[in-house]
Amino acid sequence: MEQRVSLITLGVADLGASLRFYEALGWKRGNRDDGVIFFQIPGAVFALWSRQSLAEDACVADTGASFGGITLAYNARSHEDVDAVLAEAKAAGATILKPAVDMFWGGYSGYFADPDGHAWEVAWNPGWRLDEEGRVSLSP
Amino acid sequence: MEQRVSLITLGVADLGASLRFYEALGWKRGNRDDGVIFFQIPGAVFALWSRQSLAEDACVADTGASFGGITLAYNARSHEDVDAVLAEAKAAGATILKPAVDMFWGGYSGYFADPDGHAWEVAWNPGWRLDEEGRVSLSP
Repeated sequence: MEQRVSLITLGVADLGASLRFYEALGWKRGNRDDGVIFFQIPGAVFALWSRQSLAEDACVADTGASFGGITLAYNARSHEDVDAVLAEAKAAGATILKPAVDMFWGGYSGYFADPDGHAWEVAWNPGWRLDEEGRVSLSP
Repeated sequence: MEQRVSLITLGVADLGASLRFYEALGWKRGNRDDGVIFFQIPGAVFALWSRQSLAEDACVADTGASFGGITLAYNARSHEDVDAVLAEAKAAGATILKPAVDMFWGGYSGYFADPDGHAWEVAWNPGWRLDEEGRVSLSP
């Protein structure tokens, strides 16, 4: 198995509401299908799909919890950009889980939750390389 | 907010066991830190971290559920490669949630769960482009 992730799918309660949220953040969907909504991200695809359908497709029981032990993160381009992105998310309808704070590892980080409670970290990490296309690299 | 995901973090119960699982799949960590384990993936980073620490960092309550409404997917390079990857995951200690079946959308897909129950789809999707570096594109 090669070292990669092709697709991240968020299960959502209301596909239209989730689409409006991500569109309010400036994202543009890459397909016209009514069932699953795909967004092209650098090197992979991000998807929104009915949470019930997602659980059925994966053959897993859905106990309805909002935290399943996965978070996503967005690396901002500067310290100030973290606050700007969190404010943008809040304006789009997100809940701020944690206002940004300086971190022991030298960065600056906060969290928002999307309409279904999916946790997104927004972080500035001076130790990782972020290129113009938005690709993140561990090596400096 | 640019249209991208920088980091996917899986909360795990036993960091050493999870590391052994992903290493058994052929993955190689990109850092030496004892707390969080990072893997470089195309355009982004994949991480393993204590589930409790992850929940605390994100300021979310952890009710202990295994399905939080997010799945990850790995696009295989061929129809046959799907079965090979599922077998490799099973040999590494994964639970097969769903053996691969032909899908109505023209692909072939199954699911495994990693040691913490995180659901991974393994799919062959003839409609998406997968390049040599493992980057997936919605456009053909």
